[in-house]
Amino acid sequence: MISFIPLCSHPNPEKVLIVGGGDGGVAREVAKHPKVKEIHQVEIDDRVVDLSKKFLPEMARGFDSPKLKLVIGDGFKYMKDHKDEFDVIITDSSDPIGPAESLFKESYYGLMKTALRVGGIVCSQGGSFWLDPSHVKEVMTGCRVHFPNVSYAVTSIPSYPCGHIGFVVGCLDQKLNLNTPKQLFSSKEIDEMDLKYYSSSIHTASFNLPRWVHKYFYESQ
Amino acid sequence: MISFIPLCSHPNPEKVLIVGGGDGGVAREVAKHPKVKEIHQVEIDDRVVDLSKKFLPEMARGFDSPKLKLVIGDGFKYMKDHKDEFDVIITDSSDPIGPAESLFKESYYGLMKTALRVGGIVCSQGGSFWLDPSHVKEVMTGCRVHFPNVSYAVTSIPSYPCGHIGFVVGCLDQKLNLNTPKQLFSSKEIDEMDLKYYSSSIHTASFNLPRWVHKYFYESQ
Repeated sequence: MISFIPLCSHPNPEKVLIVGGGDGGVAREVAKHPKVKEIHQVEIDDRVVDLSKKFLPEMARGFDSPKLKLVIGDGFKYMKDHKDEFDVIITDSSDPIGPAESLFKESYYGLMKTALRVGGIVCSQGGSFWLDPSHVKEVMTGCRVHFPNVSYAVTSIPSYPCGHIGFVVGCLDQKLNLNTPKQLFSSKEIDEMDLKYYSSSIHTASFNLPRWVHKYFYESQ
Repeated sequence: MISFIPLCSHPNPEKVLIVGGGDGGVAREVAKHPKVKEIHQVEIDDRVVDLSKKFLPEMARGFDSPKLKLVIGDGFKYMKDHKDEFDVIITDSSDPIGPAESLFKESYYGLMKTALRVGGIVCSQGGSFWLDPSHVKEVMTGCRVHFPNVSYAVTSIPSYPCGHIGFVVGCLDQKLNLNTPKQLFSSKEIDEMDLKYYSSSIHTASFNLPRWVHKYFYESQ
Protein backbone atom coordinates (compact mmCIF):
# COMPACT_ATOMS: atom_id res chain seq x y z
CA MET A 1 0.00 0.00 0.00
CA ILE A 2 2.86 2.40 0.78
CA SER A 3 3.95 1.76 -2.83
CA PHE A 4 0.79 1.51 -4.88
CA ILE A 5 -1.10 4.35 -3.19
CA PRO A 6 1.35 7.06 -4.35
CA LEU A 7 2.14 5.28 -7.63
CA CYS A 8 -1.51 5.01 -8.61
CA SER A 9 -2.29 8.52 -7.42
CA HIS A 10 0.27 9.80 -9.94
CA PRO A 11 -0.69 9.88 -13.61
CA ASN A 12 2.75 8.73 -14.82
CA PRO A 13 5.13 7.53 -12.08
CA GLU A 14 8.18 6.79 -14.24
CA LYS A 15 10.96 7.53 -11.82
CA VAL A 16 10.72 6.58 -8.15
CA LEU A 17 12.96 7.12 -5.13
CA ILE A 18 12.75 4.86 -2.09
CA VAL A 19 14.38 6.13 1.09
CA GLY A 20 14.99 3.30 3.55
CA GLY A 21 13.14 0.09 2.81
CA GLY A 22 16.24 -2.01 3.39
CA ASP A 23 14.31 -5.28 3.47
CA GLY A 24 13.52 -4.93 -0.24
CA GLY A 25 9.76 -5.26 0.10
CA VAL A 26 8.89 -1.79 -1.15
CA ALA A 27 11.25 -2.11 -4.14
CA ARG A 28 9.63 -5.46 -4.97
CA GLU A 29 6.18 -3.87 -5.03
CA VAL A 30 7.18 -0.63 -6.82
CA ALA A 31 8.82 -2.68 -9.58
CA LYS A 32 5.45 -4.32 -10.33
CA HIS A 33 3.88 -1.07 -11.53
CA PRO A 34 3.95 -1.08 -15.35
CA LYS A 35 4.65 2.65 -15.69
CA VAL A 36 7.66 2.65 -13.38
CA LYS A 37 10.85 2.66 -15.47
CA GLU A 38 13.53 3.47 -12.92
CA ILE A 39 13.78 2.99 -9.15
CA HIS A 40 16.50 4.52 -7.01
CA GLN A 41 16.71 3.21 -3.48
CA VAL A 42 18.89 4.77 -0.79
CA GLU A 43 19.34 2.66 2.32
CA ILE A 44 21.73 3.85 4.99
CA ASP A 45 22.57 0.45 6.47
CA ASP A 46 23.95 -2.29 4.23
CA ARG A 47 23.53 -4.83 7.05
CA VAL A 48 19.76 -4.53 6.73
CA VAL A 49 20.00 -5.44 3.07
CA ASP A 50 22.36 -8.35 3.72
CA LEU A 51 20.25 -9.74 6.55
CA SER A 52 17.08 -9.43 4.52
CA LYS A 53 18.69 -11.37 1.66
CA LYS A 54 19.65 -14.07 4.13
CA PHE A 55 16.54 -14.28 6.29
CA LEU A 56 13.73 -12.64 4.26
CA PRO A 57 14.38 -13.82 0.71
CA GLU A 58 10.75 -13.22 -0.33
CA MET A 59 11.12 -9.54 0.57
CA ALA A 60 14.66 -9.25 -0.77
CA ARG A 61 13.49 -10.35 -4.24
CA GLY A 62 12.97 -6.62 -4.76
CA PHE A 63 16.73 -6.17 -5.07
CA ASP A 64 16.77 -8.38 -8.19
CA SER A 65 14.62 -6.00 -10.25
CA PRO A 66 16.40 -4.67 -13.34
CA LYS A 67 14.56 -1.38 -12.73
CA LEU A 68 16.40 -0.88 -9.40
CA LYS A 69 19.54 1.07 -8.62
CA LEU A 70 20.43 0.43 -4.96
CA VAL A 71 22.64 2.97 -3.21
CA ILE A 72 23.98 2.45 0.31
CA GLY A 73 24.10 5.96 1.67
CA ASP A 74 22.30 8.88 3.22
CA GLY A 75 18.89 9.72 1.78
CA PHE A 76 19.23 13.38 2.81
CA LYS A 77 22.46 13.77 0.81
CA TYR A 78 21.05 11.81 -2.12
CA MET A 79 18.08 14.14 -2.40
CA LYS A 80 20.31 17.23 -2.18
CA ASP A 81 22.29 15.83 -5.12
CA HIS A 82 19.23 14.87 -7.18
CA LYS A 83 16.97 17.85 -7.66
CA ASP A 84 13.81 17.88 -9.82
CA GLU A 85 14.24 14.22 -10.60
CA PHE A 86 11.56 11.95 -9.16
CA ASP A 87 7.84 11.51 -9.73
CA VAL A 88 7.30 9.65 -6.48
CA ILE A 89 9.35 9.45 -3.28
CA ILE A 90 8.49 6.70 -0.80
CA THR A 91 9.98 6.77 2.69
CA ASP A 92 9.85 3.36 4.28
CA SER A 93 11.20 4.12 7.72
CA SER A 94 11.13 2.65 11.19
CA ASP A 95 9.31 4.31 14.08
CA PRO A 96 9.29 8.10 14.61
CA ILE A 97 11.04 7.75 17.97
CA GLY A 98 14.66 6.66 17.54
CA PRO A 99 17.09 6.74 14.63
CA ALA A 100 14.45 7.49 11.98
CA GLU A 101 13.13 10.58 13.80
CA SER A 102 14.45 13.05 11.22
CA LEU A 103 12.36 11.37 8.50
CA PHE A 104 9.19 12.69 10.14
CA LYS A 105 10.25 16.34 10.34
CA GLU A 106 8.99 19.28 8.35
CA SER A 107 12.54 19.90 7.00
CA TYR A 108 12.57 16.39 5.53
CA TYR A 109 9.39 17.19 3.62
CA GLY A 110 11.10 20.34 2.33
CA LEU A 111 14.02 18.30 1.07
CA MET A 112 11.78 15.77 -0.64
CA LYS A 113 10.01 18.60 -2.40
CA THR A 114 13.27 19.75 -4.04
CA ALA A 115 13.95 16.24 -5.34
CA LEU A 116 10.52 15.95 -6.96
CA ARG A 117 9.51 16.77 -10.52
CA VAL A 118 6.40 18.83 -11.26
CA GLY A 119 3.28 17.02 -10.01
CA GLY A 120 5.35 14.79 -7.74
CA ILE A 121 3.99 12.80 -4.83
CA VAL A 122 5.59 11.74 -1.55
CA CYS A 123 4.41 8.95 0.70
CA SER A 124 5.87 8.23 4.12
CA GLN A 125 5.18 5.95 7.03
CA GLY A 126 2.81 8.08 9.06
CA GLY A 127 2.10 6.25 12.29
CA SER A 128 -1.18 5.07 13.78
CA PHE A 129 -4.12 7.32 14.56
CA TRP A 130 -5.01 5.08 17.49
CA LEU A 131 -1.55 5.08 19.04
CA ASP A 132 -0.66 8.73 18.66
CA PRO A 133 -3.06 10.90 16.69
CA SER A 134 -1.31 14.12 17.70
CA HIS A 135 1.94 12.85 16.20
CA VAL A 136 0.24 11.95 12.92
CA LYS A 137 -1.31 15.39 12.85
CA GLU A 138 2.08 17.01 13.51
CA VAL A 139 3.63 15.11 10.59
CA MET A 140 0.74 16.17 8.35
CA THR A 141 1.21 19.77 9.46
CA GLY A 142 4.95 19.56 8.61
CA CYS A 143 4.08 18.13 5.20
CA ARG A 144 1.56 20.93 4.58
CA VAL A 145 4.33 23.53 4.94
CA HIS A 146 5.74 22.30 1.60
CA PHE A 147 2.85 20.50 -0.09
CA PRO A 148 -0.50 22.09 -0.87
CA ASN A 149 -2.26 18.73 -0.96
CA VAL A 150 -1.85 16.40 2.03
CA SER A 151 -3.80 13.33 3.00
CA TYR A 152 -3.55 10.27 5.24
CA ALA A 153 -4.40 6.68 4.38
CA VAL A 154 -4.40 3.51 6.46
CA THR A 155 -3.74 -0.12 5.81
CA SER A 156 -4.50 -3.14 7.97
CA ILE A 157 -1.38 -4.98 9.20
CA PRO A 158 -2.22 -7.49 11.93
CA SER A 159 1.30 -7.73 13.32
CA TYR A 160 1.64 -3.98 13.94
CA PRO A 161 0.53 -2.32 17.17
CA CYS A 162 -3.22 -1.65 16.92
CA GLY A 163 -3.28 -3.75 13.74
CA HIS A 164 -2.75 -0.99 11.26
CA ILE A 165 -0.37 1.66 9.97
CA GLY A 166 -0.93 4.98 8.23
CA PHE A 167 0.82 6.87 5.46
CA VAL A 168 1.09 10.59 5.01
CA VAL A 169 0.76 11.43 1.33
CA GLY A 170 1.73 14.84 -0.03
CA CYS A 171 1.32 16.11 -3.56
CA LEU A 172 2.58 19.21 -5.36
CA ASP A 173 -0.55 19.36 -7.52
CA GLN A 174 -3.24 21.03 -5.44
CA LYS A 175 -6.07 19.82 -7.64
CA LEU A 176 -5.13 16.15 -7.73
CA ASN A 177 -7.59 14.00 -5.83
CA LEU A 178 -5.27 11.61 -4.04
CA ASN A 179 -7.98 9.17 -3.07
CA THR A 180 -8.97 8.56 -6.70
CA PRO A 181 -6.48 6.34 -8.53
CA LYS A 182 -5.32 7.81 -11.83
CA GLN A 183 -4.73 4.39 -13.22
CA LEU A 184 -7.47 1.87 -12.64
CA PHE A 185 -6.46 -1.77 -12.68
CA SER A 186 -8.89 -4.60 -13.29
CA SER A 187 -8.92 -7.57 -10.90
CA LYS A 188 -7.19 -9.56 -13.63
CA GLU A 189 -4.39 -7.00 -13.88
CA ILE A 190 -4.05 -6.85 -10.08
CA ASP A 191 -3.70 -10.63 -9.97
CA GLU A 192 -1.22 -10.67 -12.84
CA MET A 193 0.93 -8.14 -10.99
CA ASP A 194 0.64 -10.44 -7.96
CA LEU A 195 -0.65 -7.70 -5.67
CA LYS A 196 -2.05 -9.28 -2.53
CA TYR A 197 -3.59 -6.23 -0.86
CA TYR A 198 -3.98 -3.29 -3.26
CA SER A 199 -6.96 -2.85 -5.55
CA SER A 200 -8.38 0.30 -7.15
CA SER A 201 -11.33 0.18 -4.74
CA ILE A 202 -9.25 -0.26 -1.59
CA HIS A 203 -7.12 2.68 -2.74
CA THR A 204 -10.11 4.98 -2.25
CA ALA A 205 -11.34 3.19 0.87
CA SER A 206 -7.98 3.57 2.64
CA PHE A 207 -8.37 7.37 2.79
CA ASN A 208 -11.70 7.10 4.63
CA LEU A 209 -11.17 7.59 8.32
CA PRO A 210 -13.39 7.22 11.36
CA ARG A 211 -15.38 10.41 11.89
CA TRP A 212 -13.38 11.52 14.96
CA VAL A 213 -10.08 11.06 13.12
CA HIS A 214 -11.28 12.91 10.03
CA LYS A 215 -12.48 15.76 12.19
CA TYR A 216 -9.24 15.92 14.16
CA PHE A 217 -6.96 15.77 11.09
CA TYR A 218 -8.91 17.94 8.69
CA GLU A 219 -11.38 20.12 10.58
CA SER A 220 -9.67 21.21 13.79
CA GLN A 221 -6.73 23.60 14.24
CA MET B 1 -20.44 0.19 13.06
CA ILE B 2 -22.29 -3.06 13.87
CA SER B 3 -25.32 -0.79 14.41
CA PHE B 4 -25.15 1.91 11.77
CA ILE B 5 -24.00 -0.29 8.89
CA PRO B 6 -27.21 -2.38 8.84
CA LEU B 7 -29.41 0.56 9.92
CA CYS B 8 -28.15 2.81 7.13
CA SER B 9 -28.22 0.01 4.56
CA HIS B 10 -31.97 -0.28 5.23
CA PRO B 11 -34.27 2.35 3.75
CA ASN B 12 -36.50 2.51 6.83
CA PRO B 13 -35.22 0.66 9.92
CA GLU B 14 -38.15 1.29 12.26
CA LYS B 15 -38.06 -1.83 14.38
CA VAL B 16 -34.79 -3.39 15.50
CA LEU B 17 -33.89 -6.52 17.43
CA ILE B 18 -30.59 -6.83 19.27
CA VAL B 19 -29.52 -10.31 20.33
CA GLY B 20 -26.85 -10.18 23.02
CA GLY B 21 -25.15 -6.83 23.48
CA GLY B 22 -25.50 -7.02 27.28
CA ASP B 23 -23.13 -4.10 27.85
CA GLY B 24 -25.67 -1.70 26.33
CA GLY B 25 -23.33 -0.20 23.74
CA VAL B 26 -25.21 -1.41 20.69
CA ALA B 27 -28.57 -0.25 22.10
CA ARG B 28 -27.03 3.16 22.80
CA GLU B 29 -25.92 3.50 19.19
CA VAL B 30 -29.08 2.05 17.59
CA ALA B 31 -31.21 4.50 19.56
CA LYS B 32 -29.37 7.40 17.90
CA HIS B 33 -30.75 6.59 14.44
CA PRO B 34 -33.67 8.95 13.78
CA LYS B 35 -35.76 6.38 11.90
CA VAL B 36 -35.59 3.74 14.64
CA LYS B 37 -38.83 3.78 16.65
CA GLU B 38 -38.61 0.58 18.64
CA ILE B 39 -35.71 -1.57 19.86
CA HIS B 40 -36.12 -5.01 21.38
CA GLN B 41 -33.03 -6.41 23.04
CA VAL B 42 -32.74 -10.00 24.22
CA GLU B 43 -29.79 -10.73 26.48
CA ILE B 44 -29.49 -14.16 28.05
CA ASP B 45 -27.45 -13.13 31.09
CA ASP B 46 -28.77 -10.44 33.42
CA ARG B 47 -25.40 -10.33 35.24
CA VAL B 48 -23.80 -8.82 32.12
CA VAL B 49 -26.35 -6.02 32.18
CA ASP B 50 -25.92 -5.42 35.92
CA LEU B 51 -22.12 -5.40 35.73
CA SER B 52 -22.14 -3.07 32.75
CA LYS B 53 -24.38 -0.64 34.62
CA LYS B 54 -21.92 -0.77 37.52
CA PHE B 55 -18.59 -0.71 35.70
CA LEU B 56 -19.30 0.57 32.16
CA PRO B 57 -21.87 3.34 32.73
CA GLU B 58 -21.02 5.01 29.40
CA MET B 59 -21.98 1.84 27.54
CA ALA B 60 -24.94 1.07 29.81
CA ARG B 61 -26.54 4.43 28.94
CA GLY B 62 -28.12 2.47 26.10
CA PHE B 63 -30.51 0.88 28.60
CA ASP B 64 -32.00 4.28 29.41
CA SER B 65 -33.39 4.83 25.92
CA PRO B 66 -37.19 5.17 25.82
CA LYS B 67 -37.08 3.30 22.51
CA LEU B 68 -35.70 0.17 24.22
CA LYS B 69 -37.53 -2.90 25.52
CA LEU B 70 -34.98 -5.10 27.31
CA VAL B 71 -35.79 -8.79 27.72
CA ILE B 72 -33.64 -11.18 29.72
CA GLY B 73 -34.05 -14.42 27.88
CA ASP B 74 -33.11 -16.62 24.99
CA GLY B 75 -32.75 -14.93 21.59
CA PHE B 76 -33.62 -18.17 19.79
CA LYS B 77 -36.94 -18.47 21.59
CA TYR B 78 -37.66 -14.75 21.17
CA MET B 79 -37.26 -14.96 17.42
CA LYS B 80 -39.45 -18.06 17.22
CA ASP B 81 -42.16 -16.09 19.03
CA HIS B 82 -41.75 -12.93 16.91
CA LYS B 83 -42.12 -13.75 13.25
CA ASP B 84 -42.09 -11.16 10.45
CA GLU B 85 -41.49 -8.40 12.90
CA PHE B 86 -38.12 -6.68 12.57
CA ASP B 87 -36.45 -4.56 9.91
CA VAL B 88 -32.96 -5.13 11.29
CA ILE B 89 -31.54 -7.81 13.59
CA ILE B 90 -28.13 -7.18 15.13
CA THR B 91 -26.29 -9.99 16.89
CA ASP B 92 -23.66 -8.66 19.24
CA SER B 93 -22.07 -11.85 20.44
CA SER B 94 -18.82 -12.99 21.97
CA ASP B 95 -16.35 -15.20 20.09
CA PRO B 96 -17.44 -18.08 17.83
CA ILE B 97 -15.68 -20.63 20.02
CA GLY B 98 -17.44 -21.06 23.36
CA PRO B 99 -20.95 -20.25 24.59
CA ALA B 100 -21.86 -18.07 21.59
CA GLU B 101 -21.02 -20.75 19.02
CA SER B 102 -24.64 -21.32 18.00
CA LEU B 103 -24.95 -17.66 16.92
CA PHE B 104 -22.58 -18.29 14.03
CA LYS B 105 -24.44 -21.30 12.60
CA GLU B 106 -26.45 -21.53 9.42
CA SER B 107 -29.55 -22.52 11.44
CA TYR B 108 -29.29 -19.24 13.37
CA TYR B 109 -29.41 -17.32 10.11
CA GLY B 110 -32.50 -19.33 9.17
CA LEU B 111 -34.17 -18.34 12.42
CA MET B 112 -33.29 -14.67 11.98
CA LYS B 113 -34.85 -14.77 8.53
CA THR B 114 -38.21 -15.83 9.96
CA ALA B 115 -38.17 -12.91 12.41
CA LEU B 116 -37.51 -10.33 9.68
CA ARG B 117 -39.98 -8.28 7.73
CA VAL B 118 -39.75 -7.96 3.95
CA GLY B 119 -36.48 -6.28 2.96
CA GLY B 120 -34.95 -7.00 6.36
CA ILE B 121 -31.26 -6.97 7.14
CA VAL B 122 -29.19 -8.93 9.65
CA CYS B 123 -25.76 -8.01 10.92
CA SER B 124 -23.65 -10.22 13.15
CA GLN B 125 -20.19 -10.26 14.59
CA GLY B 126 -18.28 -12.03 11.85
CA GLY B 127 -14.73 -12.53 13.08
CA SER B 128 -11.44 -11.37 11.65
CA PHE B 129 -10.21 -12.20 8.16
CA TRP B 130 -6.64 -12.17 9.47
CA LEU B 131 -7.26 -14.51 12.38
CA ASP B 132 -9.47 -17.08 10.69
CA PRO B 133 -10.56 -16.35 7.13
CA SER B 134 -11.98 -19.84 6.64
CA HIS B 135 -14.31 -19.34 9.61
CA VAL B 136 -15.54 -16.00 8.25
CA LYS B 137 -16.17 -17.67 4.91
CA GLU B 138 -18.06 -20.50 6.61
CA VAL B 139 -20.32 -18.00 8.41
CA MET B 140 -20.93 -16.18 5.11
CA THR B 141 -21.78 -19.49 3.44
CA GLY B 142 -24.26 -20.28 6.23
CA CYS B 143 -25.81 -16.85 5.81
CA ARG B 144 -26.10 -17.34 2.04
CA VAL B 145 -28.31 -20.42 2.58
CA HIS B 146 -31.05 -18.06 3.77
CA PHE B 147 -30.12 -14.64 2.38
CA PRO B 148 -29.61 -13.90 -1.31
CA ASN B 149 -27.41 -10.88 -0.56
CA VAL B 150 -24.46 -11.34 1.79
CA SER B 151 -21.49 -9.11 2.43
CA TYR B 152 -18.71 -8.57 4.96
CA ALA B 153 -17.49 -5.28 6.40
CA VAL B 154 -14.67 -4.46 8.78
CA THR B 155 -14.06 -1.89 11.45
CA SER B 156 -10.85 -0.90 13.17
CA ILE B 157 -10.80 -1.68 16.92
CA PRO B 158 -7.31 -1.36 18.37
CA SER B 159 -8.00 -3.47 21.47
CA TYR B 160 -9.20 -6.51 19.48
CA PRO B 161 -6.84 -9.20 18.23
CA CYS B 162 -5.33 -8.02 14.92
CA GLY B 163 -6.85 -4.58 15.57
CA HIS B 164 -10.11 -5.10 13.77
CA ILE B 165 -13.39 -7.02 13.66
CA GLY B 166 -15.71 -7.94 10.84
CA PHE B 167 -19.47 -8.15 10.43
CA VAL B 168 -21.44 -10.48 8.23
CA VAL B 169 -24.38 -8.61 6.75
CA GLY B 170 -27.25 -10.44 5.07
CA CYS B 171 -30.21 -8.92 3.30
CA LEU B 172 -33.47 -10.37 1.97
CA ASP B 173 -33.52 -7.89 -0.92
CA GLN B 174 -31.19 -9.25 -3.58
CA LYS B 175 -30.92 -5.93 -5.39
CA LEU B 176 -30.01 -3.78 -2.41
CA ASN B 177 -26.45 -2.55 -2.57
CA LEU B 178 -25.35 -2.98 1.05
CA ASN B 179 -22.24 -0.87 0.71
CA THR B 180 -24.22 2.20 -0.34
CA PRO B 181 -26.04 3.84 2.57
CA LYS B 182 -29.72 4.44 1.88
CA GLN B 183 -29.72 7.39 4.20
CA LEU B 184 -26.85 9.82 3.81
CA PHE B 185 -25.98 11.88 6.86
CA SER B 186 -24.05 15.13 6.67
CA SER B 187 -21.03 15.65 8.95
CA LYS B 188 -23.21 17.99 11.00
CA GLU B 189 -25.88 15.33 11.46
CA ILE B 190 -23.22 12.72 12.35
CA ASP B 191 -21.83 15.04 15.01
CA GLU B 192 -25.29 15.88 16.36
CA MET B 193 -25.99 12.17 16.74
CA ASP B 194 -22.64 11.94 18.55
CA LEU B 195 -21.34 9.16 16.29
CA LYS B 196 -17.60 8.82 16.82
CA TYR B 197 -16.75 6.34 14.08
CA TYR B 198 -19.53 6.03 11.49
CA SER B 199 -19.90 8.35 8.53
CA SER B 200 -21.60 7.79 5.18
CA SER B 201 -18.19 7.53 3.47
CA ILE B 202 -16.71 5.04 5.93
CA HIS B 203 -19.86 2.94 5.49
CA THR B 204 -18.86 2.26 1.89
CA ALA B 205 -15.14 2.00 2.65
CA SER B 206 -15.70 -0.67 5.30
CA PHE B 207 -16.89 -3.17 2.67
CA ASN B 208 -13.66 -2.81 0.66
CA LEU B 209 -11.35 -5.68 1.48
CA PRO B 210 -7.74 -6.45 0.62
CA ARG B 211 -7.56 -8.13 -2.78
CA TRP B 212 -6.71 -11.58 -1.37
CA VAL B 213 -9.65 -11.44 1.04
CA HIS B 214 -12.10 -10.27 -1.62
CA LYS B 215 -10.96 -13.07 -3.89
CA TYR B 216 -11.22 -15.69 -1.16
CA PHE B 217 -14.67 -14.58 0.06
CA TYR B 218 -16.34 -13.75 -3.23
CA GLU B 219 -14.49 -15.43 -6.10
CA SER B 220 -13.37 -18.85 -4.85
CA GLN B 221 -15.50 -21.92 -4.03
